Amino acid sequence: MIKNLLHGNLPGTMTLTRFADRFSKKTGILELMDDLGQAMSSRSDMLMLGGGNPAHIPEVNKIWRRRTEEILANGSELEETLASYDSPQGKQSFLESLAGLLNREFGWNLSSKNIAVTNGSQNAAFLLLNMFGGTGSDGVKRKVLFPLCPEYIGYADQSIEEGSLTTRPAKIELTRPGFFKYHVDFDKLDNSTGGIGPDISALCVSRPTNPTGNVLTDNEVASLAALAREKDIPFIIDNAYGAPFPHILFRDVKPYWDENVILSMSLSKLGLPGVRTGIIVADESIIRMISASNAVISLANGSVGQVLVRPLIDSGDILHLSRNVIRPFYQARSESAVAAIQEAFGAGSQGAEITCRIHESEGSIFLWLWLPDLPVSSAVLYERLKARGVLVISGHYFFYGLENPWTHSEKCLRVSYALAPEKFREAAFIMADEIRRVMNETK
Amino acid sequence: MIKNLLHGNLPGTMTLTRFADRFSKKTGILELMDDLGQAMSSRSDMLMLGGGNPAHIPEVNKIWRRRTEEILANGSELEETLASYDSPQGKQSFLESLAGLLNREFGWNLSSKNIAVTNGSQNAAFLLLNMFGGTGSDGVKRKVLFPLCPEYIGYADQSIEEGSLTTRPAKIELTRPGFFKYHVDFDKLDNSTGGIGPDISALCVSRPTNPTGNVLTDNEVASLAALAREKDIPFIIDNAYGAPFPHILFRDVKPYWDENVILSMSLSKLGLPGVRTGIIVADESIIRMISASNAVISLANGSVGQVLVRPLIDSGDILHLSRNVIRPFYQARSESAVAAIQEAFGAGSQGAEITCRIHESEGSIFLWLWLPDLPVSSAVLYERLKARGVLVISGHYFFYGLENPWTHSEKCLRVSYALAPEKFREAAFIMADEIRRVMNETK
Repeated sequence: MIKNLLHGNLPGTMTLTRFADRFSKKTGILELMDDLGQAMSSRSDMLMLGGGNPAHIPEVNKIWRRRTEEILANGSELEETLASYDSPQGKQSFLESLAGLLNREFGWNLSSKNIAVTNGSQNAAFLLLNMFGGTGSDGVKRKVLFPLCPEYIGYADQSIEEGSLTTRPAKIELTRPGFFKYHVDFDKLDNSTGGIGPDISALCVSRPTNPTGNVLTDNEVASLAALAREKDIPFIIDNAYGAPFPHILFRDVKPYWDENVILSMSLSKLGLPGVRTGIIVADESIIRMISASNAVISLANGSVGQVLVRPLIDSGDILHLSRNVIRPFYQARSESAVAAIQEAFGAGSQGAEITCRIHESEGSIFLWLWLPDLPVSSAVLYERLKARGVLVISGHYFFYGLENPWTHSEKCLRVSYALAPEKFREAAFIMADEIRRVMNETK
Repeated sequence: MIKNLLHGNLPGTMTLTRFADRFSKKTGILELMDDLGQAMSSRSDMLMLGGGNPAHIPEVNKIWRRRTEEILANGSELEETLASYDSPQGKQSFLESLAGLLNREFGWNLSSKNIAVTNGSQNAAFLLLNMFGGTGSDGVKRKVLFPLCPEYIGYADQSIEEGSLTTRPAKIELTRPGFFKYHVDFDKLDNSTGGIGPDISALCVSRPTNPTGNVLTDNEVASLAALAREKDIPFIIDNAYGAPFPHILFRDVKPYWDENVILSMSLSKLGLPGVRTGIIVADESIIRMISASNAVISLANGSVGQVLVRPLIDSGDILHLSRNVIRPFYQARSESAVAAIQEAFGAGSQGAEITCRIHESEGSIFLWLWLPDLPVSSAVLYERLKARGVLVISGHYFFYGLENPWTHSEKCLRVSYALAPEKFREAAFIMADEIRRVMNETK
């Protein structure tokens, strides 16, 4: 029976493909999702700092309610949305609206032919990483390079061919007492060090970065774009948290696009993860490939997100919503989260000061904590915090693709600040207390 | 520049993967969708018999409108639907409701662990065909066998590895004057003919069948299920048009499931293609694999379809809707389409009788026409009909994976009867007229 082949360990006579093998194993992201799901159902008072779900912002949710009412009232718009297949590229009206917004905002010269819709931006990454990482039709295997490690865990297991990703450790700048920032180490991308060899077929970054809250500087982006052009390879920028929406971005940086850049965007962090709408902005040739893949893999993607959001794009309300509602909301949460960490970890009535460096919080919905003196691994700390009712993500998941071990990878945590500030504060004090216990135990 | 690599022919120095190559080429389904899209926009009076979009049935659309209003009125249900990620397996409440319905209807013994949601049933097929067709981790390449050709075009290009599908030509029964029916040719699946060798890793059929309107008999299904069990391989049944919903099925046959069967279902033909909700019913081990793949490839799938439909599953209204609204609607359209074809192609004022055999219309939303005396290929006929303002699908697309040429594959057309009967009748007369012209030209 096939079930015997799949329950537990696979026997030697398995009939599954390498594809199945890649995706059915305990991937980092699945392990994480399973563990978080089980932990959350294990106790009702669990403090959830582990997930990536955006906050439910009442002012934002009101807009989706209003838009749904408008669609219901607008002739047969509801029926057209639900009862017809989209084109594999996405809704023409949505593609045109979005091209217009990006041109108005950033002076780009896009048409609807430069944009395609995907089943979320995770799915966009799946398509792109497999289009550029893996064995070419010339038989040569090439890799996608993530020039700054740590990087988003969701990329780590997406390659159909194992070993199709590589990365370079970030340079660490100690920016001010208690804070640091990662930078791209351009020395490691230099020709003289063999940095970007012929085995590299694309560069990829997230900006703002999940997990660290880092935002690559305009200079870093310009330099990476120049390197990619020089090497004739595309530069993939995951802009799921960036401008012009949802604009969870606290630095005054410029979004970047050129013909050689593949920019991905998302409606999820705008507050619509349930409609699975990712967006790719790229050269027409890339968009044709994405459309073709959508047709074969899924016929088309969902229409609801595009229909909900399009009028907000045309009116520019989406800019107001992003800049004046969503960004300030998360910026306030970021600031109170930083204050809570500093208070909890600083010297006080509860015990000695612990060295906890916070990555400069420049965007996304996460704080990234570096505990240089932690005497156990972050994975062990994760388990101990879970037992204390605080769910975080162990940082080690985000250090995939490194060629050499890096002790720094065992000393970091990702914590979401999407939850209510008083809950975050409660969690911060439990974290600090548990870390003090660990340090005392191992003294 | 990367664009030079992608525009037009790829040069020798390309940096694309085989994956990109597979999906960026002019696949049958993309060519078809592009051509249909362009043809439809070329003239406003084009008669569209080519697509797979379900009809907009007013009584059905009313239900989605009512459900949307109910969701808006039901506390924060709208916000919960839009603003949170689903689990990679799908909504627990939906999975439980559906397991209950299938158990009540068919006496199966399913739990929520036997069900997963995908981004449409096309996407379910993508995952399944690649989990079973292709190179195994043992290095051996295996194929998925479609035991009855012609079969759904959407499968043809889904394999990441080329040549991972194979098929066997159907046996043709002339059922009554002007009609025929395909049957599985079990002689070609027999051990003595080497039918299902160790290179076959799964069987796959659609039932009701797109493109032919065929419904495999209960005996055929039982025999295929027995063969699959004997060979220790899964039996994939695509039930997108079948029972219990949307029940576009005009024969009294029994849906089949056992632990070795992977059944896929869909909300699309229920009238909800825009929400992309496919369903897989299978052994728990398969469901775990699908969930894992969903997590890596897309994090999760859309929530809207599940939330719209779940109460109808619990109340049983979905059975009423399917049996008493959707099935009679398409059955009436099928009958009037058959009558129109018979009238148009039969001897009459317009010219001589043409031999046009109709596949017994047992389900799905298509008629399948066999023109044994057609002096040109169906692809040529397609172009000529397009020029006359009638869009059909050339049958040759559905004969992929054959080991030997089969002239029958050049003599068939797929026509949708989802459009209004008077439009279908108009198209039938144009088709008959054009075919008479072709026959006269080549006399």
